[in-house]
Amino acid sequence: MSSCIFCGIVAGTSPGRIVYADDDVLGFLDIRPVTRGHTLLVPRVHSSGLDDLDPAIGAALFRAGQRLAAAMKTGPVSADGVNLALNDGRAAFQTVFHTHLHVVPRHDGDKLSFAKGFLVRRDPDPDETAAQVRACIESAG
Amino acid sequence: MSSCIFCGIVAGTSPGRIVYADDDVLGFLDIRPVTRGHTLLVPRVHSSGLDDLDPAIGAALFRAGQRLAAAMKTGPVSADGVNLALNDGRAAFQTVFHTHLHVVPRHDGDKLSFAKGFLVRRDPDPDETAAQVRACIESAG
Repeated sequence: MSSCIFCGIVAGTSPGRIVYADDDVLGFLDIRPVTRGHTLLVPRVHSSGLDDLDPAIGAALFRAGQRLAAAMKTGPVSADGVNLALNDGRAAFQTVFHTHLHVVPRHDGDKLSFAKGFLVRRDPDPDETAAQVRACIESAG
Repeated sequence: MSSCIFCGIVAGTSPGRIVYADDDVLGFLDIRPVTRGHTLLVPRVHSSGLDDLDPAIGAALFRAGQRLAAAMKTGPVSADGVNLALNDGRAAFQTVFHTHLHVVPRHDGDKLSFAKGFLVRRDPDPDETAAQVRACIESAG
């Protein structure tokens, strides 16, 4: 899968702002964030979507999402809520064909920017954002 | 949790068009579907959101989502793609405070209606839709 950009990030051969890591899952900032701190969690082992995703790895992916969501509610991100989303297939807006779970930190009153900003918003300082998400995970333990 | 509408559906004391069931998870049609067949998967045991969701049950919830997504790609629904989404907290659009995973069957070319129909679309024949989703699960085995 040498042409898969997410496999490249997992392998360390493509750049990515890594914010989460466990044995099965890696997390990095989405380069087109819906909100600041929007993170993608990907299984380290390639699968294109739900059809070829090992259910045990799917469970680990969701577990990582739950962990990251809890962390994002603490520290510098201090989210009021979190959206988890997995888009499976082109008809469902999937654009990178390596399974990924979106973890989107939300704050009270951001609804309009969520709807309007979909796929177009740019984080003005993604390095700082990555540091903040990492700090949340550290503070959440 | 006698006031929880989803606990009522799980208990069988509130109406719901049940389409999926396993030991930990129940699935029924969303009464405000984004697309036809839009299903909510809920843990049988009450939790309000990710914070108080047992991670093992969370894993079971995702597993059920993966299973239902595969089923929806078969039979009468024959989805081209599926969105899985979990909205955690009021700031993230959660409106019923019993953890639930949205499973949204998608078809090529429905993007506009997805965006426009959010929270307002009505299924003209939900009983038939429920029968179709159940048929998908049966055909997927």
